[in-house]
Amino acid sequence: MLFFTQCFGAVLDLIHLRFQHYKAKRVFSAAGQLVCVVNPTHSLKYAPTRCASAQTSVEQGVLPTCHHHEAAHDPQLVPCTCPLFSCPWEGHLEVVVSHLRQTHRINILQGAEIVFLATDMHLPAPTDWIIMHSCLGHQFLLVLRKQEKYEGHPQFFATMMLIGTPTQADNFTYRLELNRNQRRLKWEATPRSVLECIDSVISDGDCLVLNTSLAQLFSDNGSLAIGIAITTSKVHNAEDEM
Amino acid sequence: MLFFTQCFGAVLDLIHLRFQHYKAKRVFSAAGQLVCVVNPTHSLKYAPTRCASAQTSVEQGVLPTCHHHEAAHDPQLVPCTCPLFSCPWEGHLEVVVSHLRQTHRINILQGAEIVFLATDMHLPAPTDWIIMHSCLGHQFLLVLRKQEKYEGHPQFFATMMLIGTPTQADNFTYRLELNRNQRRLKWEATPRSVLECIDSVISDGDCLVLNTSLAQLFSDNGSLAIGIAITTSKVHNAEDEM
Repeated sequence: MLFFTQCFGAVLDLIHLRFQHYKAKRVFSAAGQLVCVVNPTHSLKYAPTRCASAQTSVEQGVLPTCHHHEAAHDPQLVPCTCPLFSCPWEGHLEVVVSHLRQTHRINILQGAEIVFLATDMHLPAPTDWIIMHSCLGHQFLLVLRKQEKYEGHPQFFATMMLIGTPTQADNFTYRLELNRNQRRLKWEATPRSVLECIDSVISDGDCLVLNTSLAQLFSDNGSLAIGIAITTSKVHNAEDEM
Repeated sequence: MLFFTQCFGAVLDLIHLRFQHYKAKRVFSAAGQLVCVVNPTHSLKYAPTRCASAQTSVEQGVLPTCHHHEAAHDPQLVPCTCPLFSCPWEGHLEVVVSHLRQTHRINILQGAEIVFLATDMHLPAPTDWIIMHSCLGHQFLLVLRKQEKYEGHPQFFATMMLIGTPTQADNFTYRLELNRNQRRLKWEATPRSVLECIDSVISDGDCLVLNTSLAQLFSDNGSLAIGIAITTSKVHNAEDEM
């Protein structure tokens, strides 16, 4: 009996996921755009004034230390760049993607234009929605964060970071687009490098910023669909790629 | 001697104005776009929780009453729609523009695409920057407001309102665009009618909202250039025009 109840629950979840997928496709009607449903991760131990020192059930037992601004002993090594978790991992930039996939279970999507569908926007701050995006021969990290920069007034911050150096990041432009109910909001900028701290990007406000009321206007049944596009802003320099 | 000092001051002001004009043209490099330098108006008695009841030196002696939500005795008459001032004036929709120009000294600009250059963005809230925009056979009111929706955290709100009925407003789409330093922010929406209260538009957050930090990123030497474009979103209905 319990087995059947669980099966029924799983089927309902699948229908709900399929329905959200359909809704996002309807909003971004461009054919062939990949829609990715991204579930939130609530950061239990998040400290807004410093680098992310979150610790979730997935990552229990990991030291709550922030490495983002600390100099790595070996200049070839970079600390874990996942903005969600404090993680003692260090490694070469080339293996950051596999670390984020395997250890932090962050999905990776292919395609120049994708739709990021963040669910459960009503959840209290601090909450993050994260995916990786593989495009133009590089990997990008899209972070949507709900945070109370001013106490009692949660805001949404969305930004894209290149899993690469700041020099490589300068070659790209990313665009985030919200489109619903005869309203459209577009943000275009150069991505930051994951070597920079995500928290400083958010505290500088140098990203797409949404008040709760504006986020609600663009949300559909608690989910926010963000269209993402990445283009090259410069001719690639072979040296920059190294 | 005093005369020469004043003349010198006036010349300096003109050079400064010309320089700002040039800067805005440089930012919005599209040829033929009209740049309008808009100076701020500080609202001394502004009450954020209700309709604008400001009283400035220009308007001293005017009753500080808000008419925006009160029913006019004659349904053909509308109250003064200027969001800056509380004004006891009532008149037909057709003469609102001349009232705003003559009594409130609000400039009117022609052209489908213009650049609104708001000066002195650093001034404390509440502050407004207003112009009228004549385009596609209609007049629009562009309002940029600096307001502390949350105490101690001023934000900028920009919106466009049609000097016409809500049915007429539905025929248009307005776009506000900020573009500076490899960053671009675009807001597109249907304008509201001036018959609706500007304060409710702002408290709903249904407009372009900028945090102080984001406004600073787009500002150049204390001035914010906003590109404005208006298009028709529907085929005009002859009945709606009446």
